[in-house]
Amino acid sequence: MPNISRKGQRMPASPIRKLTPYADQAKLNGRTVYHLNIGQPDIETPVGMIQAVKNIDFKVWAYTPSEGTLSYRKQLTKYYNKAGYNITPEDIIVTAGGSEAISITFMTCLDAGDEVIVPEPFYANYNSFASQSDIVVRPILSHITNGFALPPISEFEKTITDKTRAIFICSPNNPTGYLYSREEMEALKALVLKHDLYLFADEAYREFCYNDQPFVSPMHLDGLDENVIIIDTVSKRYSACGARLGCIITKNRKFWETAIKFAQARLSPGLVEQIAGEAAIDTPDEYFERVKAEYTARRNTVVNALNNMEGVFCPNPGGAFYVMAQLPIDNSDKFCQWMLEEFSYENQTVMMAPATGFYSTPGAGLNEVRLAYVLNNNDLAKAMKCLEEALKVYPGRVTAENRKQKAESIL
Amino acid sequence: MPNISRKGQRMPASPIRKLTPYADQAKLNGRTVYHLNIGQPDIETPVGMIQAVKNIDFKVWAYTPSEGTLSYRKQLTKYYNKAGYNITPEDIIVTAGGSEAISITFMTCLDAGDEVIVPEPFYANYNSFASQSDIVVRPILSHITNGFALPPISEFEKTITDKTRAIFICSPNNPTGYLYSREEMEALKALVLKHDLYLFADEAYREFCYNDQPFVSPMHLDGLDENVIIIDTVSKRYSACGARLGCIITKNRKFWETAIKFAQARLSPGLVEQIAGEAAIDTPDEYFERVKAEYTARRNTVVNALNNMEGVFCPNPGGAFYVMAQLPIDNSDKFCQWMLEEFSYENQTVMMAPATGFYSTPGAGLNEVRLAYVLNNNDLAKAMKCLEEALKVYPGRVTAENRKQKAESIL
Repeated sequence: MPNISRKGQRMPASPIRKLTPYADQAKLNGRTVYHLNIGQPDIETPVGMIQAVKNIDFKVWAYTPSEGTLSYRKQLTKYYNKAGYNITPEDIIVTAGGSEAISITFMTCLDAGDEVIVPEPFYANYNSFASQSDIVVRPILSHITNGFALPPISEFEKTITDKTRAIFICSPNNPTGYLYSREEMEALKALVLKHDLYLFADEAYREFCYNDQPFVSPMHLDGLDENVIIIDTVSKRYSACGARLGCIITKNRKFWETAIKFAQARLSPGLVEQIAGEAAIDTPDEYFERVKAEYTARRNTVVNALNNMEGVFCPNPGGAFYVMAQLPIDNSDKFCQWMLEEFSYENQTVMMAPATGFYSTPGAGLNEVRLAYVLNNNDLAKAMKCLEEALKVYPGRVTAENRKQKAESIL
Repeated sequence: MPNISRKGQRMPASPIRKLTPYADQAKLNGRTVYHLNIGQPDIETPVGMIQAVKNIDFKVWAYTPSEGTLSYRKQLTKYYNKAGYNITPEDIIVTAGGSEAISITFMTCLDAGDEVIVPEPFYANYNSFASQSDIVVRPILSHITNGFALPPISEFEKTITDKTRAIFICSPNNPTGYLYSREEMEALKALVLKHDLYLFADEAYREFCYNDQPFVSPMHLDGLDENVIIIDTVSKRYSACGARLGCIITKNRKFWETAIKFAQARLSPGLVEQIAGEAAIDTPDEYFERVKAEYTARRNTVVNALNNMEGVFCPNPGGAFYVMAQLPIDNSDKFCQWMLEEFSYENQTVMMAPATGFYSTPGAGLNEVRLAYVLNNNDLAKAMKCLEEALKVYPGRVTAENRKQKAESIL
């Protein structure tokens, strides 16, 4: 039998999806499972987008240009320029979701062994795309205690080597929900200019900023044209995850002309998706207002409930639709599995993502979980009640006091 | 300004698309351009597929499982088992076109520096996907004189090194149209078993076999379960290139379990495409009969016309919708560009793909072009007339006689 590649062996399995068999079993056993584990919102996709799909009137489902249709890129330009990006359709390459945007960006800028610095915790699949291209992710710890703010620039400076090519941020952040301030963005700008690095910015959650804190993109900063690569997707913005429609935006021509070669290799993004994406740009502002109000209410439900549980701490995030919570537990992987395998409250349980999957640093996130508030407030309240009851009886419960004792006994 | 990766610099630009600016200019100048350069058929997509798109009734455009929906994989199983593949839905991973199927297959089986043997000429993007993963393509020349039949197995044996991991075939072939016989497939089987290699088979053109010659897949051969990886796509089968819907099929579990990790990284194939793909399986047989009759007639038009031109030779291919023709020209890149820039017959010209883009061996294909018969017979006849007139006046015309003289003068 021929061998699997070493790359294939090293490739990480999805840490979020590995608990799925336990959830499936729980459901087979008749239990209700509240899915707070993945970023698949229950929010309805804008009617205009769905209607555009239903109205297709072509007879041949043909390739589009590798960079996407001009009409879609024109509409996107309208959307981004309303947000102050000052771009033209020539600055865009349409991709199969944010995923393809990331892998093309990595291949365009980094060779095997090159390094990208990412504040952690971070979206686990960054690791996967790095692994695909034999790129090294250098994590820099951010901390739950200050809500996962940008780590000090001195930490970045310490991590930069002659292999460092880029800094990769995600704001509003998955998994933390943290929204970088203008000051933090300015600090990153100075850093990438000083060291001549790319700044990759995953902006999947751009539309979901709360507390009246403004969203600041690196596209809003002057003097970064050659450094900034924006990764975007319609997945979360329009609750259209299954459309697989994203894009890369950059004013760096050399980057664009290289990235398009990777895009040409896979021929074309989807035609129907681009038609839908074009319609999506005309989504009325009320859609986002309604969705933001809904997410804000959900976030409040979850954050309040969590912080009212004994031994639990959950920062109040400024964006996205995730929270990270510190729980009084020994091991989040074990806890999340136990929730599905062993626990039941009124025949219900909760599926969460162990935070360990979002960290590269060994041992980090052991007592943290990520919750996606992608269910309605009613179900979220029931899920929180479930979690509260679970924490009372979890055999691996660890309080701050006995965690400290344990640490001392090890020393 | 930060640097582009060496990988990005090495990445080949699409050889097929590089003439596009000249074609655009010709059209701006008011000339009709017959596009025989790319495999974008004018055939209508099956009505059932389009109708399935128009009938979508979901409210949330959600992710599907990374391996594709079970219902689509069940339908695919029905289709493949009708063709004698004997598979289950668990043998399939749904992908974004054949393109993603190839890149996942490469990453799953080959590491940087590993080698894949490909009979040439071959689909140019195999080079691109190899380049993405730093994989080495080792071409083995097939020849227009015998219609691009499988090169002798001894040529493969000579090329196999300790870095060789796979042999990659495409039958019916793009760009040659050649359809491998059962004997050729059996020879390949013996070879891959002897050397414990993977056999990658791109079957994008499966449905388009002419002359009553049967299509033989490696899936029809016994004892190859661990070796065979099928690459497929709906692009050509249903004239749905812009759907970006393909799949990988294998009975090798270890391969599947590794490939799915790459599929998980990019989350999901498209939901709407899978709904359309599911409907496509119920396309009535008459659709294929009609399309095959149409392609056969077109092939006859093109092959007859070409072989009636002085100094031109074109084998009669058994499948796909391409022919390779040997022309009395000095350089196919120059000739194809000249056709667009300089030539006009009754204000028309023809865009073809220089064959050099399908060869890795330097100098191979210099006097060959690929023509895709993706236009109706009427337009094809006009295009052939154009080409005939062009060859009469092309300044770089080379006859067999003066080619021989030239070769002797160099010696």
